[in-house]
Amino acid sequence: MSSALNSYIEDQQPRFLDELKELLRIPSVSTLPDHRADVRRAAEFVAEKLRSAGMENVELIEGAGHPLIYADWLHAPGKPTVLCYGHYDVQPADPLELWNSPPFEPLERDGNLYARGSADDKGQMYIHIKAVEALMKVNGKLPLNVKFLIEGEEEVGGASIAKYVAKQGAKLKADVALVSDTNMYAPNLPTLNIGLRGLVYMEVEATGPSRDLHSGGYGGAAPNAVFGLVELLAKVKNDRGEIEVPGIYDDVLPPTAEERASWESLPFNEKEFLQKEVGSTELTGESNYPVFERLWARPTFEVHGIAGGFTGAGSKTVIPAKATAKVSFRLVPNQVPEKIVAAFEAFVKKNAPRGVQMKVTVLGKGPGLLVDTNHPAMQVAARAFSQIFSARTVFTRSGGSIPIVGDFAEHLKIPTILMGFGLPDDGLHSPNEKFNIGQFEKGIKTVAHFFELYGE
Amino acid sequence: MSSALNSYIEDQQPRFLDELKELLRIPSVSTLPDHRADVRRAAEFVAEKLRSAGMENVELIEGAGHPLIYADWLHAPGKPTVLCYGHYDVQPADPLELWNSPPFEPLERDGNLYARGSADDKGQMYIHIKAVEALMKVNGKLPLNVKFLIEGEEEVGGASIAKYVAKQGAKLKADVALVSDTNMYAPNLPTLNIGLRGLVYMEVEATGPSRDLHSGGYGGAAPNAVFGLVELLAKVKNDRGEIEVPGIYDDVLPPTAEERASWESLPFNEKEFLQKEVGSTELTGESNYPVFERLWARPTFEVHGIAGGFTGAGSKTVIPAKATAKVSFRLVPNQVPEKIVAAFEAFVKKNAPRGVQMKVTVLGKGPGLLVDTNHPAMQVAARAFSQIFSARTVFTRSGGSIPIVGDFAEHLKIPTILMGFGLPDDGLHSPNEKFNIGQFEKGIKTVAHFFELYGE
Repeated sequence: MSSALNSYIEDQQPRFLDELKELLRIPSVSTLPDHRADVRRAAEFVAEKLRSAGMENVELIEGAGHPLIYADWLHAPGKPTVLCYGHYDVQPADPLELWNSPPFEPLERDGNLYARGSADDKGQMYIHIKAVEALMKVNGKLPLNVKFLIEGEEEVGGASIAKYVAKQGAKLKADVALVSDTNMYAPNLPTLNIGLRGLVYMEVEATGPSRDLHSGGYGGAAPNAVFGLVELLAKVKNDRGEIEVPGIYDDVLPPTAEERASWESLPFNEKEFLQKEVGSTELTGESNYPVFERLWARPTFEVHGIAGGFTGAGSKTVIPAKATAKVSFRLVPNQVPEKIVAAFEAFVKKNAPRGVQMKVTVLGKGPGLLVDTNHPAMQVAARAFSQIFSARTVFTRSGGSIPIVGDFAEHLKIPTILMGFGLPDDGLHSPNEKFNIGQFEKGIKTVAHFFELYGE
Repeated sequence: MSSALNSYIEDQQPRFLDELKELLRIPSVSTLPDHRADVRRAAEFVAEKLRSAGMENVELIEGAGHPLIYADWLHAPGKPTVLCYGHYDVQPADPLELWNSPPFEPLERDGNLYARGSADDKGQMYIHIKAVEALMKVNGKLPLNVKFLIEGEEEVGGASIAKYVAKQGAKLKADVALVSDTNMYAPNLPTLNIGLRGLVYMEVEATGPSRDLHSGGYGGAAPNAVFGLVELLAKVKNDRGEIEVPGIYDDVLPPTAEERASWESLPFNEKEFLQKEVGSTELTGESNYPVFERLWARPTFEVHGIAGGFTGAGSKTVIPAKATAKVSFRLVPNQVPEKIVAAFEAFVKKNAPRGVQMKVTVLGKGPGLLVDTNHPAMQVAARAFSQIFSARTVFTRSGGSIPIVGDFAEHLKIPTILMGFGLPDDGLHSPNEKFNIGQFEKGIKTVAHFFELYGE
């Protein structure tokens, strides 16, 4: 990259970091109604920074939920257009007692910045804005056309952006989308993520007796909503980690031999992964598949939360009338979310225990995706990434889901470059989430350099 | 019973009822700190009525919680001694909006007295006091020795009385205890409850990964504490309602053929029980046992509450690190709580899923109880009950636990006569609790007559 650009980015680092901290101080927790005003405040902050970076047509797009932010700079005729995506909302911070410092008071320690949203996704989203600012300040213009679409509902299902993208194909027209909301496989290993798992997220509500009953008076004859739900959920997955819902594996495409070989060459210490990342005594799941395949290319079932009956201090002998669980299936490319929902609903209907009614509500769904590594933007992105980090870029997949990537594919017919600058131990969605400060700076350089190269 | 006694009780009914109303107007809700003074006022009211009934050595026994009331009359040498137990505290009245009349303003309607505590247990406890008064006023003495021990913490666990009974074996020495805190099986069906189930109440805590993990990043390889707990609990009971914990049925004594036959003769409409009481589509449990046996003479396992992971509004894709459940086994007579705890702990150890640690904490335990129907007091109680109600007394059991009965058995080595005058629809612990006024009067007659007969 040009040395002027490099110097600007390095010189402005302290200010960039201060601005990011300001954004991190806004508790823009999109799922909690109490934080509605904070979410808006974060949106306004981001819009203002887009304007000061030189972006034009900056607007807050109002919908039923939290506002979308749009901006563009389209003065490079004949050059490609990149659609930059990010989100300014964050996960709830609970359990608060497990944080070493307050989640919304960013703290620098050992080269990291600790705060809810630091890596997911405020810090990474901000990289795009600062890359644009650097190019504009140094060159007075951008080397290609750029559009921004930033949302505030990523952590709650992204309903508004999905609708917007479905309707605004012309306005959002671009050659490729750029998303920085993932992590590198390892420190110093530039990584482009070419595969994502899909997701079907559901709530299961169990109803037993019409009211909580006394377990002395009715225990032995009355259905128990909590136990009924427990019985049902336990049947979904056997003790070998295999999902027992009929049809669930029908459309699973195995990775190619080449992809498998490349995964096997990745640095991976299973013991370290187990102890430092998972923090457990053993790994679980389908033991006849290697760990990468289980995480990236196999569907999974998880119970995210369960609640029902008496859970206060002490004892209360009720037979609970109601219980609910949040569950999801992760899907791999080629699986169809609607088919999975139908298969699960049929499974629940067939396996609901005696006397317990089950209601399934779909809270969100999206398919898995695989990006073609031969796309020109993908090739250039890999080159920019390799140059800034001085290491060969690897192509991996992710076990997570980024629904917007599916929306871009479906409605805009464009691939997405998942150029993530997070590190594996960032603790997304967990207490003590952090973002590495060096990654923040190199991220800005990489994105700016990608724009340079892709604009050539 | 003597006609003088009968006349006295009938003549004094209006006053007895007025006194009971006065007691019901005192909101002696033991669990609410705001009502502490009310609870004491109720204790003082009861103590005063014991004195005016002719009882001696009336004292309020102070402890950490609400006072116990003791009283005695011991001038019948060579005659048996009856220990009368009751409680003057009540459940909270909420939800207030479901009451048709204010819970602490007793209202007579259709032969019933509506108020919180009318049946549980002020009205029934007061029966004992008025029976003593009647005998004293009519005969100038009692036909046997009587002790009273009345508590104000029954609705909050009865900690004070349990300690007191454990220490005061000599002072409380008696031949039998009399408790009126249950109900008759049906109107006009005098009922003596001779069996109670025991209880082992535990908390199970599951720990999976060391922190909540993102299900995208780790789903397929990391253990899930909620799912692990679900898997474990589901194994405790099979889909036929049978408990799968080895040894759990070892010490279960089946009811005698005579007892079974007597249960089968009880009026019971399964459809009505299902629809009106349980409020469900079907009954559950061990279908090869009749309902009464399942409720009264079979051990059961229930999950009273479960909590873990994300249970707020919307979606959060965590793999939870922790989950807990409150569970219990109801025990039948002859089962040993300690053996059940050990059997469950061994089962948990053996069945804990891969990567999930389980911790079991015992929150409470007590054995089941069975009273010998051939005990002289029991025979006499049945006779008195039958004569006053002009119907044959039935012996039933209860699926619940009354800890004080276990304390009397363990520390005083005496059986307890559970002579309840409530009716099944009294609505204990619910809005619009009531006590039938006819039951109140017949209750006083029955207890007085029991004293007469047992003193002969």
